[in-house]
Amino acid sequence: MRYPPALTQLIRELGRLPGIGPKSAQRLAFYLFNQPEEDVKSLAEALLNAKGNLRQCERCFNITDQEVCSVCRDPGREQGLICVVEAPADLLAIERSGEYSGLYHVLHGALSPMNGVGPDQLTIQPLLARLGGVREVILATATTVEGEATAMYLARLLGELKVPTSRIAYGLPVGGDLEYADEVTLGRAISNRRPL
Amino acid sequence: MRYPPALTQLIRELGRLPGIGPKSAQRLAFYLFNQPEEDVKSLAEALLNAKGNLRQCERCFNITDQEVCSVCRDPGREQGLICVVEAPADLLAIERSGEYSGLYHVLHGALSPMNGVGPDQLTIQPLLARLGGVREVILATATTVEGEATAMYLARLLGELKVPTSRIAYGLPVGGDLEYADEVTLGRAISNRRPL
Repeated sequence: MRYPPALTQLIRELGRLPGIGPKSAQRLAFYLFNQPEEDVKSLAEALLNAKGNLRQCERCFNITDQEVCSVCRDPGREQGLICVVEAPADLLAIERSGEYSGLYHVLHGALSPMNGVGPDQLTIQPLLARLGGVREVILATATTVEGEATAMYLARLLGELKVPTSRIAYGLPVGGDLEYADEVTLGRAISNRRPL
Repeated sequence: MRYPPALTQLIRELGRLPGIGPKSAQRLAFYLFNQPEEDVKSLAEALLNAKGNLRQCERCFNITDQEVCSVCRDPGREQGLICVVEAPADLLAIERSGEYSGLYHVLHGALSPMNGVGPDQLTIQPLLARLGGVREVILATATTVEGEATAMYLARLLGELKVPTSRIAYGLPVGGDLEYADEVTLGRAISNRRPL
């Protein structure tokens, strides 16, 4: 006994998604088989619609359904501030914090020579091209090895161009218990202490 | 800043799948955004194709793309044996064991009064209707509370109809360490011991 081809095909396609192994793919396929036809159709349409309508913002490479994204279009944003992030999800996380009112630049990745990601695979050239009138670039790449390497690389480039550059702060997460913080984070939190 | 509607819609649709929370849905949506258009199209087509082509076998309720599934169509199968399982995935698991050459009957669930699943929500009536010439029914529902209750319920029905009925064996999984087996399983493994 083999599954019918339509089912095998669906399991294979679902199994190609990140974080979904063969077992999950099979479970999802059976789940979808048991759903009403409209629900499966609306998932398929959402997929096609997203792929057809979404693109990268021409200026900051955020995800948008227009030529320029809603942040870049907003005249109320501080035009002299650019916050550099790795991915659109990071941009949204910063937006949710409500602490930032400048523009963004989405790199779509971080430097990772082991995985073949060099400066040319990221949107670094377009970043350098939009520095006119910018008074500060905030490097908000992740605090992983790749994110740190990317921030260091950009800091050197921007330093040569005499653009003031900053890095988001390291320290204890708010609500965090000292006991459970790793030693590197705790060390950074102490060395970066602020006068009250 | 809000996500464009096409992206929000895709995240919402993906988040409705079982085991996929809002964060995973967002991650999947960004992943799909970065994939080539053909890949996203082929996922969407697999969804529509599966939903359009697949149905339940008229006899055993297995998933099939024809009126009767490949197991029921196979003349080499022992026609007098029916193995009752909860789901098509269970059927395939038994097929992979290579130990069974009879027919199947897929209940599409297990009795669960708490969740509103009674005998009428399962394919029990069609099972009773196909018992002519059957020499044994093997109850291979799960060894969960619901699976056990379903097996007990069917055993009573089949007993009244004088159909020989068996239950799959309980015991230690092959490769299992006694130390890590739960006490109920271990107790069953001892009481169901076999002479060598």
